[in-house]
Formats: sequence, C-alpha cells, structure tokens
Amino acid sequence: QNQRDTVMRQSSIHHTSKGFEFMTSDGDFLLQFAGRLQFRFASPDDQNPVTFDDFTDQNTRLFKINRARLKIGGHAYKPWLKYYFEYELAQSNLLDFRIMIEKWRWLNFKFGQWKVEFTRERFISSGEQQMVDRSLINRAFTLDRQQGLTLYGNLAGEGIANFNYWVAILTGSGRGATSNDDSKLMYFGRVQWNFLGREVPFEGGDLELSQRPAASLAIAAVTNTSPYTRFSQSGGGSLEGYEGGLPGQYTVNQFQIETAFNFKGFSWASEFHRKYIVNNPTNVTTDLGGYYFQAGYFMHELLDFWPEKLEVASRYAQYRPDLSIIENQQNEFAVAFNYFFVGHKNKLTVELTRFEFRDKSLTQDDETRIRVQYDVSF
Amino acid sequence: QNQRDTVMRQSSIHHTSKGFEFMTSDGDFLLQFAGRLQFRFASPDDQNPVTFDDFTDQNTRLFKINRARLKIGGHAYKPWLKYYFEYELAQSNLLDFRIMIEKWRWLNFKFGQWKVEFTRERFISSGEQQMVDRSLINRAFTLDRQQGLTLYGNLAGEGIANFNYWVAILTGSGRGATSNDDSKLMYFGRVQWNFLGREVPFEGGDLELSQRPAASLAIAAVTNTSPYTRFSQSGGGSLEGYEGGLPGQYTVNQFQIETAFNFKGFSWASEFHRKYIVNNPTNVTTDLGGYYFQAGYFMHELLDFWPEKLEVASRYAQYRPDLSIIENQQNEFAVAFNYFFVGHKNKLTVELTRFEFRDKSLTQDDETRIRVQYDVSF
Amino acid sequence: QNQRDTVMRQSSIHHTSKGFEFMTSDGDFLLQFAGRLQFRFASPDDQNPVTFDDFTDQNTRLFKINRARLKIGGHAYKPWLKYYFEYELAQSNLLDFRIMIEKWRWLNFKFGQWKVEFTRERFISSGEQQMVDRSLINRAFTLDRQQGLTLYGNLAGEGIANFNYWVAILTGSGRGATSNDDSKLMYFGRVQWNFLGREVPFEGGDLELSQRPAASLAIAAVTNTSPYTRFSQSGGGSLEGYEGGLPGQYTVNQFQIETAFNFKGFSWASEFHRKYIVNNPTNVTTDLGGYYFQAGYFMHELLDFWPEKLEVASRYAQYRPDLSIIENQQNEFAVAFNYFFVGHKNKLTVELTRFEFRDKSLTQDDETRIRVQYDVSF
Repeated sequence: QNQRDTVMRQSSIHHTSKGFEFMTSDGDFLLQFAGRLQFRFASPDDQNPVTFDDFTDQNTRLFKINRARLKIGGHAYKPWLKYYFEYELAQSNLLDFRIMIEKWRWLNFKFGQWKVEFTRERFISSGEQQMVDRSLINRAFTLDRQQGLTLYGNLAGEGIANFNYWVAILTGSGRGATSNDDSKLMYFGRVQWNFLGREVPFEGGDLELSQRPAASLAIAAVTNTSPYTRFSQSGGGSLEGYEGGLPGQYTVNQFQIETAFNFKGFSWASEFHRKYIVNNPTNVTTDLGGYYFQAGYFMHELLDFWPEKLEVASRYAQYRPDLSIIENQQNEFAVAFNYFFVGHKNKLTVELTRFEFRDKSLTQDDETRIRVQYDVSF
Repeated sequence: QNQRDTVMRQSSIHHTSKGFEFMTSDGDFLLQFAGRLQFRFASPDDQNPVTFDDFTDQNTRLFKINRARLKIGGHAYKPWLKYYFEYELAQSNLLDFRIMIEKWRWLNFKFGQWKVEFTRERFISSGEQQMVDRSLINRAFTLDRQQGLTLYGNLAGEGIANFNYWVAILTGSGRGATSNDDSKLMYFGRVQWNFLGREVPFEGGDLELSQRPAASLAIAAVTNTSPYTRFSQSGGGSLEGYEGGLPGQYTVNQFQIETAFNFKGFSWASEFHRKYIVNNPTNVTTDLGGYYFQAGYFMHELLDFWPEKLEVASRYAQYRPDLSIIENQQNEFAVAFNYFFVGHKNKLTVELTRFEFRDKSLTQDDETRIRVQYDVSF
Repeated sequence: QNQRDTVMRQSSIHHTSKGFEFMTSDGDFLLQFAGRLQFRFASPDDQNPVTFDDFTDQNTRLFKINRARLKIGGHAYKPWLKYYFEYELAQSNLLDFRIMIEKWRWLNFKFGQWKVEFTRERFISSGEQQMVDRSLINRAFTLDRQQGLTLYGNLAGEGIANFNYWVAILTGSGRGATSNDDSKLMYFGRVQWNFLGREVPFEGGDLELSQRPAASLAIAAVTNTSPYTRFSQSGGGSLEGYEGGLPGQYTVNQFQIETAFNFKGFSWASEFHRKYIVNNPTNVTTDLGGYYFQAGYFMHELLDFWPEKLEVASRYAQYRPDLSIIENQQNEFAVAFNYFFVGHKNKLTVELTRFEFRDKSLTQDDETRIRVQYDVSF
C-alpha cells in the first residue's frame, strides 16, 4: 500500500554533534539519530537530601547508569518543519516529543512535550551541565516537562536591543499526563535580554573560550492550578507537606530572575526564585524561596601548566521551604572538575558537595557527598 | 565474534512514505525507519462515552500526544522475507511484531502479533483514518491485535473474479499476552470480493481521485473462548457487565459484513456487526449489534473555489449492547474536515461529534464533542 | 545550538551480521543498528518447571513473541571507544548498556550493565543457543546482568599458553537496579585456558565446521552480599525458600568449572556448579549443586543424505537445591534439531524435553515438553 506517494530521494549521511545524520538530496528530509549514556558513581547517596531522614539512611556505594537516551530529530517535508523526540531507555519514559515550526527567527511555534524554558538550569540538557547534576533548588522550582503550545523567538535590534521571548499555554499536568485534571491550564512567559548583543548558549561552561563577552538577564513567571506542587521526570508530584493534592487544589505562582555570562573561559550563572502555593480549599498561602550562584573557569587561560581541557567549577545554593520560618533552610556548596575529552559529548566529572540543613525544631545536620560521572554521546 | 559471517554489502538510502530506507546493493536487505507523532486537542473529553456516567464527568480541556510511534520494517536475506515492528513510545507498548513470507500474490504467510484483518475500520492505521479516530462501535467489536499465524492472499481472475482471503489461528488473548488462558484458540476468516476488479486501499478517503471506481464487499467471522469480551491496545478486556472473566468463561462468536468504494474523490465505507457472547458456566447468550456508514468527498472536484487538499467526511454509527432490549442504543453522528498538507503523512483534522445514548431505565443523554488533530510521519 | 562543534563527516553504509552499519570516512564513528525477533510455540508450558506444582498446572498451548530486541552498537571518537545497548521491546527493559575501551588485546576495560561472563551458557546470546533456551540449572546459578566495571583480555603466548581473564567489581543488585542495598559489592573473576591455542567462540554449535580443533577449560568464582539469591532479566530475585530477603541478608559464594570444544561440526560444552548461600542473621549455610553436558553435531559430515544445514543436539542437566538432601533433585534431558537457514541469524529449532523431579517428601513427577522456535535477526 502507499506506493503511489513514494518518491525516491537519494540521501547523504554525516556524523555531527547531533549523531548520525541522513538527509535527502533536496534537503527536505533530515533524520538525526543519537544515543547518550551517563554513568555515575556516588557515595554515600546519589540524590540530594530532601528531609533530615535522608542523612541517617544506611549509607551505600552506588554505581549506576543514570541516563540512557535515544534521541531522534530532524525535519520533514520542509526544512522549517522540525521534529524531535527523546526516549529514556533506562526508565522507558518518552521525555520529549515536539514539532517545531521555525520559519522566522523572531516567530517560532512549538507544540508537544518538552522542558519548559522557565529556568536556565533545567533547560540545559543533563548532558551539558557544569556540575554532575542540577542544584538543590531545582526539585522545588522546576516546571520540568509539560505538554502544550508555545510561541518564541529572538528579536535582534541594533547593539544591546537583543531579546528572546517565550509565551506558552500548557496543560500543567507534567510529563506523560494523558488528561488534564480540570479545565484550568498553565500559563508561562519569559523574557531574556541579551544586553551584550548575543545569546549565552544554553550549556554549562564557556568551552569556546569566547573572545567577546556574552551576557543575559532574564525574568520568567508562571501560574498553574492543579493537584501538583512540583514536577519531575516522573510527572506531577508533591513537595513535602502537600501530599495527596486533589484536582485544582493548589494554585502555584512562581517567578525567577536569572543571569548568565561567558568570557574567555569563564562562565557565570545565577537564579533567584520565589514560589507562592495557594491551598485553594483553605486559602492558606505558603511562600518558598531559593537561589544559586555558579561559576566555572578553564584555568589554563591563566596557568600554563593547567591542562587545557580541565575546567573547575563551583556552586552555592540555598532553598527555604517556608519563608515565614527563617530557621528552615537547606544549603549546598559544591566544587567540580570537568575533563572534556570531546566537549560535553565525551566528558568526565568529579564533584564534591557539602549539604547543611537547618530546621526550627530539629538540630542542624550535614553530609558530604562525592560523585564521579562519565557522559558520552554518539 | 561473528566476523566470519560478515559480508560487506554497499547500500543505498532513500526517503519514501515508509520513512528513511536503507537497502543493500544486492537488494537482499532493506531497513525502513519511520516515526509518527499525533497531537490531539479535545473538549470536553477525548474518549467516546461508554456509559451514562461519562456524560456527567467534570469537563476538561485536553491537549496531549495521542500517539508516538517508532516503525521499523523491511526485509532480510531475501526480498520476500519481510519483518515489521512498531513500538508505541508514549505508552512503552510493543504493538506489531511480525514476519511475513510474501513470495506469491495468492499465498502469503505471516506470524507474530498484528491487527487482525477483521474490520476495515480497525485495520486501517490510526494515521490514515478519515475521521479523528474510529467509530463508537469499534470498542465492542474489534479484535484488535492478536498473536498467531495467518495465511492470506489475492486471487485475481478475469474481471470481477478478484478475491482476497485471510485465515488465521490466534491465541485470542490480545496484545502483549505471554500465555494463553487455556488450550482453546481463536479462529478467524475473512473473504473480500473486489467486484470491480481491484482492491480499495486500506486507508481513509480517496486521496488519489481514482479515475476508475474500486469497490469491495467483505464478510468476516471469528470464534474465541477466553476470559475476554473485548480487545484493545491494552490487550484483553471486558465489556460492561462482563467484568472479571475466568479462563475459558466466554465463548464469543462474531461476524460482520463490510463495504467500501472509491471514485473521483468520493469514498464510502460501512460495517454491519453481530456478536454473540456465551457465558459458558451459565449458558446464557447475549446478542450485540452495531453498524456504521461513512462517506467523504474532495469537494474541489465539484466546486472550483473549494481548496484542493480539503476533504469533508461524515459518519453515522449505532451500537446496541443487548439486541433483546430495543431501547438500549448508543448513536454517534460526526462531521470532519481533513486538510492533507502531504496526504495522510502530514494532515490536520477538525471533527465535531454528537453522541446520543438511550436506555430503558434511564432518561436519554447526549453530548457534543470537538476534536482537533495533527498527524505527521517522518 | 551546538553548530560550532558540528563536523560533517561523509559516511559509508553496509549490512553485516551486526545489522546495518554506518561509518564515517575517517573511521572514527560507527553505528550498528539491528533487530531480532524470536517466536516460540510451546506445549504444555514454556517455562521450565520450578516446583512440583508446575506439573499440575492447567495445560495450555502457547504461541508468543519470546524476544524482540533492538540492538545499537558501534564506536565513537576513536575505534577503540565502543558502545552497545540492547533494549527488549516486548518487556520495555533496557538490557545492556556499556562502554568498552578495547585498545589492546590483553587489557580491556568495560563499564555499564551486561551479562556477567560467569557461565558460557548465560553469556551466549539467546539468539545463538544450541537448544531452544538455556538449561534447567541456569535459573539457580546465573548472575545474569549486573552493573559495574570489569577488566578483561586475552593473553596469547606460544601454543597452549593462551588465556582469557575477567575481573569485575559489580553492585550485585541485578539488572535495572538504581541503588545498591548496602555498601557491599559483588566481586567476580574468571580464567579460561584455551589449551589448543585458540578460543571457542561464545555461540552454540560448530557452524563453521572447524578444521582445527578448539577447546577451553574455565574456572569462575563470585561472591556477593545482598537480599538476592538468584538473578534474571527481572533483576534480583529469590530462590524457593529464600523469599523476602533484607539488605545484606544473604552472602552467596559460587564457583563453576566449564569446558567447551569444537571440531568438524561437533561441539561440546559443560558446566559444573557449586553455590553456598549463607543466611547472615542465622548463620545457616545451604549448599546447592548442578551441572549440564551438551553436545551437537552436523551429521552431514558423516552421512551424505543428511541435510547440510541441520544440526542435532542433546543436553542433560541436573539441579540439586540442597546437597544435604540427596533425594531432592531435578533432571532435564533434551534433544533438539536446528535448521540454520542463515546461521544463527535465521534459524528454526524443534526441541523435545523430559523433566523428572524427585523429592524426599513428595512422589516423583515428570513432564514432556515440545517447543518450536524461529529466530531471525536483521
């Protein structure tokens, strides 16, 4: 069947940073096929602690495949009709699936499921992080993946008049949801000012040793009414104290202010978050806050003896689960060394992290964690 | 290891309606690799109502990935030794896996798991439907996917003596079953008379604007003894009132009469069903019935101003869950507009459906549903 | 993004025993893409009996897809940096994922998840077995897949001084584990003496009709502390009588002695096992034992009328779940005929198996099973 609409198109094949690429000679069809494996050793635990109980767990030494991804992308029928899907083989989860209509730089259209562009930290691929993984505050503030539609683009005027924008309507039910809990949706917007005239790439570190500085300042906001108070690869979930949400129980409003900067091997990023959770039946609101600062440097730029492909990076993060209780806070301080065999596509990271948790009613507790990670794409 | 049986064969690559194709120069090996994404918006609900309760659900607005398919097919060792498998990425379900020995037109052999050729509506791919999805009666009457063996072929005599046949032995336990409930199997047969001398393709609409008419009349029958009274992508299941079936509890006999016709942009299809469920322990038999009519037309054939790629289609379906209770019936009336950017491979459908349910002991109830769907293969 | 590290490399394509192969012209990147489908009919049951209850089950006739594998391998960046992953589509399980650094014949390094090289029987792919599947003793003694690191290589001296070795540190929590139960790991070693100067390939049968004999003698040992007393594709599990293990409850020590031999179409393999399960809280140790012998022959080497591609093979296996109770034993005797259309890549197997179970407190029981299997790779 269907022989009639079969047009034979001679193709070409290449390997690029997106994996093996197959393209028809007319350029109308492109298929990119790539895999990524991430191996991780962690001691005493891999996950960031969430509650004080996590410090008293039996300690384990852990080696595991942390991510095993199959990535298939390209375009079909026209170069501007793009598709992408990504499957997590270790968990059998479909992560991304999206169609992008990218005809103009200033106006693009995307629908499907993807990581909402709310925060730089979450939007950067897990394969292109600067540390082994995202910070302590990501769990509470990320929107993770959502399903819906978005408009986005880059408005490039003269000099400093360079902006990116994203406006989205999403179901707000998280990854893999097949229904919405009610007719209320998630609304999201982000504006990013690239005030030195060009974007900071969405990846950790300044691997290109940029000879011209790049910087951005962004603000993003979101509102959602759903049973959920947090999102992760598992879909919608609950922060501690908000378990068992009913349809439409929580209205969550969030905003964040973000900076990023790259220059001559030095890189900087920060996010400052506020999140307001309204429990609609009781009308009680809780305010959550958090922030991180992160910086990295290829020290070879300063010190000749330092290996060229070795970056050192550091991060400080603080999360406050209830701003009205000043004693309740969770702190993370981390140092990492990245050796980039072939950029982010083939790299080894060693990371040391110190966690300190404080609580009004409990004594302080802390933990030091070491993680080693190898990440390779092909 | 295995280097000794490695024969290097230079290959060629093309893109066709089956996706990217890789073939060795001797023609003995072919690999077809394709994906398909189907996005759907529905309000107030996506699923067809099944019981009266479904009319009083909380209404939601729904946007979701409805299907995300990875399709891998081709042939190996010989052009007539074909393979095919299809994986649903959004649900992590292996749908089709089958080997086909297709050496002669009149005698072919297939084994594995696939959609039984019982009804035209179900056998047509979800990507090549004329409406957004199958009719109200599909749930009760489809055999969906089964595992087993089948013989099939096309017997083409002079002129009107053109027949297709299918004869199958199946486990009758549905998709993904890894065991049979007892030693009783499912037996299936279908004869299709292509009385104008050629087959009507298994896809919705007459996209080719056939200059010669094509028509078919088919009859199909099946018998199965199992715990199940219906089948779906989830495997064996139960119709309302038949829950919790035990091994061998139900003997289900079914037949259907089907017509199809294509000519100059006009297309027609119908099915008329009877299903007899014998509850073996009690020896009570229930008779179920249903039918649909469906027609579509590319109005540009008549009206110059009508867009060439726009088809209008309509369907009426009736399901009667117990023929002995004349008041119990479920009706569906639907109108759809298909815009075929690139045939069924890239199309947008808007559909409006009216459901009316009647019941002896309940008052009548109804609902109007709108669905918008974009389906793209690459 | 990432355009800067995109280097276009013109590629070539072939089909080999590893499926379709795509390689860049500089040889630095290789992608191998293959599928495998295995169809099985079994009566009265497919699984080997485990307890006496399994003999009195309701008998069924079974046809199923037994395995549906997607295999993706190759190398990236350098020919010696190899990757491989294998996904079971029918169960949605990620089986293998591993990176291999294979720069020297005598010293290789592998990490990820794979089938531990503890026994020849388990290490041989399910697509290259000599019988329909592995023996009765595999369930009790296999380490199956584990996650960790291994060193391995071939030390080839003059003549008989030809050895293979494997040394591994593994988490000992089985396939798909994302955490270790405690900080105790699994340690594994194997030495294999190829005393006729070359290795016996890890696959069933002597399909090459070796003109020079090949033989090996191997000894392997392992120790592990975990909740588990057996491993399978489902990960860590429990042997009968060891259900519900707690973290660190069982220390399991095992060793086995293995032989293999190939010559002119004749093949031989055997394993002799001992397993010591220490229940740490009670300090009670149970000793388990088992062995199998297996041989196959292409009778065409002797008898002209015998089809060239037809091998006959036979296996005897015995399992003793507690060596201190001499009456408790399980025996398997099997005969199989393999027709190799295209080696192991396309073959049909018919197998007849006789099981006899004896038990101190129960009467003897037995069962005869027939299985037919078709296995095809593409």
